[in-house]
Amino acid sequence: MAKGLPKRSDDYSAWYNELVKKADLAENSAVRGCMVIKPYGYAIWEKMQQTLDKMFKDTGHSNAYFPLLIPKSYLSKEADHVDGFAKECAVVTHYRLKNADDGSGVVVDPEAKLDEELIVRPTSETVIWSTYKNWIQSYRDLPLLVNQWANVMRWEMRTRLFLRTSEFLWQEGHTAHATKSEAVAETKQMLEVYADFAENFMGVPVVKGVKTANERFAGAVDTFCIEAMMQDGKALQAGTSHFLGQNFAKAFDVKFSDKDNKLEHVWGTSWGVSTRLMGALIMAHSDDEGLVLPPKLAPIQVVIVPIYKGQEQLDAITEKVKPIQKTLQNLGISVKFDDRDSLRPGFKFADWELKGVPVRVAMGQRDLENGTVEIARRDTKEKNTYQLDGVVETIQQLLEDIQANIFNKALDYRESHITKAESFDEFKDLLENKGGFIAAHWDGTTETEEKIKELTKATIRCIPLDNEQEDGKCILTGNPSSQRVLFAKAY
Amino acid sequence: MAKGLPKRSDDYSAWYNELVKKADLAENSAVRGCMVIKPYGYAIWEKMQQTLDKMFKDTGHSNAYFPLLIPKSYLSKEADHVDGFAKECAVVTHYRLKNADDGSGVVVDPEAKLDEELIVRPTSETVIWSTYKNWIQSYRDLPLLVNQWANVMRWEMRTRLFLRTSEFLWQEGHTAHATKSEAVAETKQMLEVYADFAENFMGVPVVKGVKTANERFAGAVDTFCIEAMMQDGKALQAGTSHFLGQNFAKAFDVKFSDKDNKLEHVWGTSWGVSTRLMGALIMAHSDDEGLVLPPKLAPIQVVIVPIYKGQEQLDAITEKVKPIQKTLQNLGISVKFDDRDSLRPGFKFADWELKGVPVRVAMGQRDLENGTVEIARRDTKEKNTYQLDGVVETIQQLLEDIQANIFNKALDYRESHITKAESFDEFKDLLENKGGFIAAHWDGTTETEEKIKELTKATIRCIPLDNEQEDGKCILTGNPSSQRVLFAKAY
Ligand SMILES: [Zn+2]
Ligand SMILES: [Zn+2]
Repeated sequence: MAKGLPKRSDDYSAWYNELVKKADLAENSAVRGCMVIKPYGYAIWEKMQQTLDKMFKDTGHSNAYFPLLIPKSYLSKEADHVDGFAKECAVVTHYRLKNADDGSGVVVDPEAKLDEELIVRPTSETVIWSTYKNWIQSYRDLPLLVNQWANVMRWEMRTRLFLRTSEFLWQEGHTAHATKSEAVAETKQMLEVYADFAENFMGVPVVKGVKTANERFAGAVDTFCIEAMMQDGKALQAGTSHFLGQNFAKAFDVKFSDKDNKLEHVWGTSWGVSTRLMGALIMAHSDDEGLVLPPKLAPIQVVIVPIYKGQEQLDAITEKVKPIQKTLQNLGISVKFDDRDSLRPGFKFADWELKGVPVRVAMGQRDLENGTVEIARRDTKEKNTYQLDGVVETIQQLLEDIQANIFNKALDYRESHITKAESFDEFKDLLENKGGFIAAHWDGTTETEEKIKELTKATIRCIPLDNEQEDGKCILTGNPSSQRVLFAKAY
Repeated sequence: MAKGLPKRSDDYSAWYNELVKKADLAENSAVRGCMVIKPYGYAIWEKMQQTLDKMFKDTGHSNAYFPLLIPKSYLSKEADHVDGFAKECAVVTHYRLKNADDGSGVVVDPEAKLDEELIVRPTSETVIWSTYKNWIQSYRDLPLLVNQWANVMRWEMRTRLFLRTSEFLWQEGHTAHATKSEAVAETKQMLEVYADFAENFMGVPVVKGVKTANERFAGAVDTFCIEAMMQDGKALQAGTSHFLGQNFAKAFDVKFSDKDNKLEHVWGTSWGVSTRLMGALIMAHSDDEGLVLPPKLAPIQVVIVPIYKGQEQLDAITEKVKPIQKTLQNLGISVKFDDRDSLRPGFKFADWELKGVPVRVAMGQRDLENGTVEIARRDTKEKNTYQLDGVVETIQQLLEDIQANIFNKALDYRESHITKAESFDEFKDLLENKGGFIAAHWDGTTETEEKIKELTKATIRCIPLDNEQEDGKCILTGNPSSQRVLFAKAY
């Protein structure tokens, strides 16, 4: 129950951590940095998966599966990639345990040492491009449009449920193309898919942009991203789409013969979103009473709570609400009838608020007499009494309204938290006292970017795709700049 | 293409290996024993997943996700489990790589050695029951009905695509109950779900039975299984459902207070099927031309091939078949229109036969004139010409017929390959010259079971659930026996 949920205004960070646990979304496991995703949390992730999977297939992609373990030497094949990923990772060195001589349990068998260590994949470019080498010979084999749903592992020292965990679930698309322009178009198409998903399903408005060289994926020519804003004014990178140029094709010697029988290196992209989206979803909308879920991703969209004394009243209410449940379910709406008999209605109300169920329908004795129900919406907490007649249409409309309202509320917040800074003092003041995205001029150098990060903890989230060009001066160095970029403190 | 596919009668094993590769289902990766599941193979696995997932949810289960890595010490907590699983497994000993001093690449950082080694999960009972300890306090928390879709790893020395790989994909259900009878009922229910799936979706008849003590899951009180028969007369275990008793509850100290406030250990089950089912599906039905897929699991159920010369003919044919494609798709039938212009119809026919597409529709110039199409079914290779009018109903009916026929054909084969043996000589002769299941008396001892295995390579596949009781004598020892058990050589 919400009992003990800290207030966002008191301690946003503690509020998030407690909410994830109390709403039964996830918890830490006995293995450092690895989480258990609980059934209710996983049900939300499943809805995300199903939606994204359909979007990927509608844009021509197929799923496949590549090995969990990657030979250590693969990481070194792409020069930039190794710097980014051959660091904090889980290393498999042996393939057998044996009973300890002293009977104390099992120990690693020193005779079962691998000739070459294997890495639990932190991302799969290397193993996939080593496979693509055999799949691609001719232009007829292109484009190759493949996605993988998988677990990956990056050893993290400081972890937070969903936001940063050593193991996480994700999808990684890996495509191969005959031309540069086609690969660039794919990169941008997938960025649009991610933005569409974030805005129209998660209800989270995002800025589409391109990363600076410093924030680019290790091995990419360009990294595009969608950046969301949380209720505490911090940014969260919600998805990335990388144009890989010919980097991995060259590293793994992947060539194709074009229509003129000329051998060329293939052009590549990769793109991914992860269970981090769960963190974004939770932080973007929820309140001090618990989760606020967009109807399109809520595992339970409508809960019906009977308020009764005795079996007779329950039976009478059940008879009235069961047909409503049935009709809604036939419309594809997920409905829970909460007739748990050991719990009081007030407890149930608080429980479903905590769980973020968008629409709550309650029916008591007086409703029974009047032929009405009380309907409460989770986002605004508005309650109204409706006649049973037409209640299905009311609920359908309400679900649409809630989906729209959640997005609009987040959009209003985001719009009022993009602020221009004209000087470094103003920049620091905004960061400290208002938060959000700060649009400021920057001289384009990694040096300046890192200096600003060092001084303020703010990073350049992206250069927006539709960015206005204007002459200005870098807020730190005063050097000339042709456009503003978006800075923020970020998750 | 089927070119180069060995005949089953010549070399069944080579036929299988080549078929898996040529039909684009899977291939070996650079990592020993780990496979790449290619898009076409993965599309079949996705259909299996979706079907099973719905069956699990219809029986009240939810999905969740538990960590990939398991502390080494967890394996030792259940005495039998450790013997079964703490052997050939991938062991993570370090969490960081660093650049080699000599610039030769990356090496394991000796300073990043884990205090306790972590095992890539071979199965998740231990990590899940260590979690359940915190989830279960009262009888109100029971039953706990959870399933996980995941990758697991068992280091295998001899691997075969789908049938035995070091990494494989699977689902593992893990449930907790207040009473023994409820846990036993769950174990049997899931066995029925698996049998239903195997027979009614895969078209593979199975024998439901219980394993002998010797073949039991390490840590289970009873292991139930479904056993299928392949076209070479060998058995394949297609799914297992384990009644765990209170073994894991005791190992991980999972207790609940019952309605009388008494603390009791919880009763458990676990059950799983894996990408091994892909092997069963392929081997049960396919022929020398390629895959034969049951319509319910075929990624492409109908392929339409236009036979034309020039754009004008193609346009005319397209105009006729597009509405058929559309109508079928609206009925939920997946249809591919193969208008690849660089390939000849004969090549396309062979390609879709190799891929096991159940129904092929062809339309040529004469069909165009007559208002007909030629329809071929993959299972029997029958071809007939049909009027366009009513063709959708014809195809629907055909898909049902093929689904039924595939099952019946496999059932006939299975029924004609269950043979009684009354002596050990007869037993050996049957094994050598006929194969299949051999129903024979056995004295009930592990010693005899292992001796028979040593002498013949046959194992006891199961004691069928509906087994007839009859007095007899063990084929090896002559000791008294009250029932026959099923022996076979197995995958
Ligand atoms: Zn503000
Ligand atoms: Zn035979």
